[in-house]
Amino acid sequence: MIEKLSRLFVRTLRDDPADAEVPSHRWLVRAGYIRRVAPGVYSWLPLGLKVLRKVETIVREEMVAMGAQEVLFPALLPREPYEATNRWTDYGDNLFRLKDRRGADMLLGPTHEEIFTLTVKDMYSSYKDLPLSLFQIQTKYRDEARPRAGLLRGREFVMKDSYSFDIDDEGLDASYRAHRDAYIRIFERLGLEYVIVSAMAGAMGGSASEEFLAVAKNGEDTFVRSPGGYAANVEAVRIAAPEALPLDDAPTMSVVDTPDARSIAAVVDVLNAEHAQDQPWTADQMLKNLVFLVKHPDGTTEPLAIGLPGDRDVDAKRLEAVFEPSVAVPFTPEDFEKYPALNVGFMGPVDASGAAILGEESATGIRYVVDPRVVTGTHWVTGANAVDQHLTGVTMGRDFTPDGVLDVADVREGDAAPDGSGPMQLARGIEMGHIFQLGRRYAEALGLKVLDKNGKLVTVTMGSYGVGVSRAVAAVAEATCDDKGLCWPLELAPYQVQILATGKDISVFEEADRIAGELSERGLDVLVDDRKASPGVKFADSEILGMPIIVVVGRGLADGVVEVRNRATGERSEVAVADAVSAVLELAGR
Amino acid sequence: MIEKLSRLFVRTLRDDPADAEVPSHRWLVRAGYIRRVAPGVYSWLPLGLKVLRKVETIVREEMVAMGAQEVLFPALLPREPYEATNRWTDYGDNLFRLKDRRGADMLLGPTHEEIFTLTVKDMYSSYKDLPLSLFQIQTKYRDEARPRAGLLRGREFVMKDSYSFDIDDEGLDASYRAHRDAYIRIFERLGLEYVIVSAMAGAMGGSASEEFLAVAKNGEDTFVRSPGGYAANVEAVRIAAPEALPLDDAPTMSVVDTPDARSIAAVVDVLNAEHAQDQPWTADQMLKNLVFLVKHPDGTTEPLAIGLPGDRDVDAKRLEAVFEPSVAVPFTPEDFEKYPALNVGFMGPVDASGAAILGEESATGIRYVVDPRVVTGTHWVTGANAVDQHLTGVTMGRDFTPDGVLDVADVREGDAAPDGSGPMQLARGIEMGHIFQLGRRYAEALGLKVLDKNGKLVTVTMGSYGVGVSRAVAAVAEATCDDKGLCWPLELAPYQVQILATGKDISVFEEADRIAGELSERGLDVLVDDRKASPGVKFADSEILGMPIIVVVGRGLADGVVEVRNRATGERSEVAVADAVSAVLELAGR
Repeated sequence: MIEKLSRLFVRTLRDDPADAEVPSHRWLVRAGYIRRVAPGVYSWLPLGLKVLRKVETIVREEMVAMGAQEVLFPALLPREPYEATNRWTDYGDNLFRLKDRRGADMLLGPTHEEIFTLTVKDMYSSYKDLPLSLFQIQTKYRDEARPRAGLLRGREFVMKDSYSFDIDDEGLDASYRAHRDAYIRIFERLGLEYVIVSAMAGAMGGSASEEFLAVAKNGEDTFVRSPGGYAANVEAVRIAAPEALPLDDAPTMSVVDTPDARSIAAVVDVLNAEHAQDQPWTADQMLKNLVFLVKHPDGTTEPLAIGLPGDRDVDAKRLEAVFEPSVAVPFTPEDFEKYPALNVGFMGPVDASGAAILGEESATGIRYVVDPRVVTGTHWVTGANAVDQHLTGVTMGRDFTPDGVLDVADVREGDAAPDGSGPMQLARGIEMGHIFQLGRRYAEALGLKVLDKNGKLVTVTMGSYGVGVSRAVAAVAEATCDDKGLCWPLELAPYQVQILATGKDISVFEEADRIAGELSERGLDVLVDDRKASPGVKFADSEILGMPIIVVVGRGLADGVVEVRNRATGERSEVAVADAVSAVLELAGR
Repeated sequence: MIEKLSRLFVRTLRDDPADAEVPSHRWLVRAGYIRRVAPGVYSWLPLGLKVLRKVETIVREEMVAMGAQEVLFPALLPREPYEATNRWTDYGDNLFRLKDRRGADMLLGPTHEEIFTLTVKDMYSSYKDLPLSLFQIQTKYRDEARPRAGLLRGREFVMKDSYSFDIDDEGLDASYRAHRDAYIRIFERLGLEYVIVSAMAGAMGGSASEEFLAVAKNGEDTFVRSPGGYAANVEAVRIAAPEALPLDDAPTMSVVDTPDARSIAAVVDVLNAEHAQDQPWTADQMLKNLVFLVKHPDGTTEPLAIGLPGDRDVDAKRLEAVFEPSVAVPFTPEDFEKYPALNVGFMGPVDASGAAILGEESATGIRYVVDPRVVTGTHWVTGANAVDQHLTGVTMGRDFTPDGVLDVADVREGDAAPDGSGPMQLARGIEMGHIFQLGRRYAEALGLKVLDKNGKLVTVTMGSYGVGVSRAVAAVAEATCDDKGLCWPLELAPYQVQILATGKDISVFEEADRIAGELSERGLDVLVDDRKASPGVKFADSEILGMPIIVVVGRGLADGVVEVRNRATGERSEVAVADAVSAVLELAGR
């Protein structure tokens, strides 16, 4: 196939779009692949659409190859099924809601678990019908709080979502593995450097869950890896609790004066100055206590105190992931006013008399949860719940007993992997795929049961699997672009070859057309820059547009040569006109 | 490609869906091609999606062949551009509107004139860039008052919409013709019996406009045809006004008593009984007057009286088309109370004294428009605006002068075509395509100007062109199905061949697979009914599912024969097993 740049609906831009935060966004807009219509909402121009379709084709082929069947469900959905699973409420502001002319509540589908569940319920009734995997490549909607980075986090986007239906857990395991394998093939074919990490299931519910992340320094997701093979999204890291210590060895609890020492650092300083030990006091001996208000989607709230080692902070994304769809926000001064027993800067689980201050059974009644490192027998310096006073030797299991454990402290480079596989490294990535074992949550809520071999009704168990299709276009652009523009791999490029006819001699244009014709006959897609523009403009545009192979038919033609360039490596070679086609075919791996 | 019915996500239903009004809807649901999710909102199951994709491919190929470039624009759109063209208001309740989490007004695109106009404005600036035609195959949303007939009138549906951009009227004409020619090829390939009729531009604005209607007795649209080649959507018919008559020949106006004669028929009866003439009085000598309240999208209203020959009624759809986006509804008793001069049952443009009662300059001030047949010099029997009285000889141009002409009377079989090409016939159809010359309305509103050859800024002129892609699936089903089920043409069938393995002998299944394998190698798509089901069930399902060629591998196999059926004609032939593949290939036209 041959296209002429003179008529192609594309314009390259000299300047970066004002809102471009990452290179892929900058170049996809500057190269005329996409255009912004509203925050997080984009139009696909001809070149961008070609890349999108190629990604879709790869995803479709691999889904069909694993035995999934393609369907296409609507984006405009009724409220009722999402009400039955609580997602109408749980999705919070992320859901686009609307009313139709009769006042019926509807939504724009963020994912389609409910509708697939109901459709299978409508069609199938026996274990003989299972296993079943259905997929669609479809436009999804999420009203993101912060749409950003172009296609990387949009509000309207293309996703491949699939759903598996099995009679039992073994079946679900097999369907999950089949999807996992298909995803590996998809991301290999997309040419992305990716990692598979353990993930939180989040608002989807369910148990086993992994993410496919494209490794990218501008990625929104942080993940960890250990030398021994542990890999997890940072939200999914569950640190290993240390062994409990014998209570007998714990020091006695005593009060220390800590005037104006309202921060961990200040307390450490006072202790080292006024109460020096053999070893200096350090932040990790302190117990930091923070109070949050947990806001539920139904509008109710509850206070929550979190205790964690003083050298750690609460990681906002880990906290968010744990509470989703609820949200935990730090106590405001107004919130603290309702709990006069809480002494900001000097909070702790007990006071100097040993009376509990934090905890469901305490004076305040505030639920108190601690970091997994705070195990029985560990002793801490913490606030005495009195101005300018802290307590030392406050021992877990003797002086206080928390209501539970909450693993939301920041994860750091070098922290031990939970499975003992060594120190963890942190890196960033773009979430490209997510596979979940949903289990029976949706089937229960919507009554999807089938008859088993014994004629007994059993609830079906489900999996849910997504690939960000439009996001993949951006992720590949992000991984491959350079400081000159886009730089597509052969499999995804809108055209594998761009031929520049430079100069004004008619023979240059004729020869460009001839080479294009031959390459097209060999099955390559060719873009011919036949514009009346200077060689400099054509060179620069070819680098911005990013076709992998560039052929320059210009001044050299008089000497019987053309130039063949590899966009990615920058390598150039002059070849005889007669050899141009074979040189391109070789670069194209044909 | 081969698919096994035992694993295909499909179930045929014995009963018609409760809401199925037309055969295509009934069979598409019963055959498991689509499922209803909400009123006017459907899921595409595997078989249905295959047909949809085939229609899409035909449309795409023909649009590319005519030089249009494919893009994909979002469905979720900001309010502002639609505000600039008034469509935010004009679309009324048909528009799905929503607010995002920040409170910004958004809509689900019913068509995309605004966004295409803005995108071209963003990219292009010179006459050298034109002509340009862009198209997309995309999901559209309209909150129909009465979604019905399955895919025929949905609220979420797939459309091909394209837009042409030209520097001048000649360019627009050429773009319009190129689209018209492409549409002819599309509807030929879809195998639809269609007509091209003159159409109203409606809310889109613009001038020249034609519709492609699939002829279908269950169609929602009525169109007319004449022997001389006139063809128009009934809304677009503009009847030819007769010649004016000399006022001198008109009879004098006189009062007749018409006790209790509140209908045209009653007045005719009284006149024939009490005031007999040479010729009996007939309804077409009466002037019927109806009063409507015109409601505008901005909430304002105005009264309007319509006068038309007594043998005609106002056609609701023609009335709707004229006023769109406003709506004209008959005066209610409450409305009449505000105009005591109006005497229901005895209304007319003047009273017995000759004082005007209807018309902008009249006592009531109500705008008065008449049917085109009410020309100067015609005289009528009409209400005297007094109880139990009518007037005869009320002459247009002498006794009353209306404010304008309104052509909304019903069009009848046998009425003369406006172009003198003979009597019109009425038929029904499904609107499959619509082509408009929009002109400069959108470009003006949104400031799309380019430099012409003389360096002067000129406003671009546009066309807008639509094909109902999902609707085409239903229209073809409607045109081809019979009382046994669906019946696809070869080009659109999900599979060209369905092979039924009937019987329990393993050889039957093996032979079915062998034939399927050979046909698949020859490029046919084959569905094998390998279920453990009775021959009766398989026969019935094959007729419901509607693949064009059916091969029965069953009892005959012992004698070395299989049966090949043509689903559409019902023809069956027994062929030797060895000839089965060639017999199918012949039926498939290979």
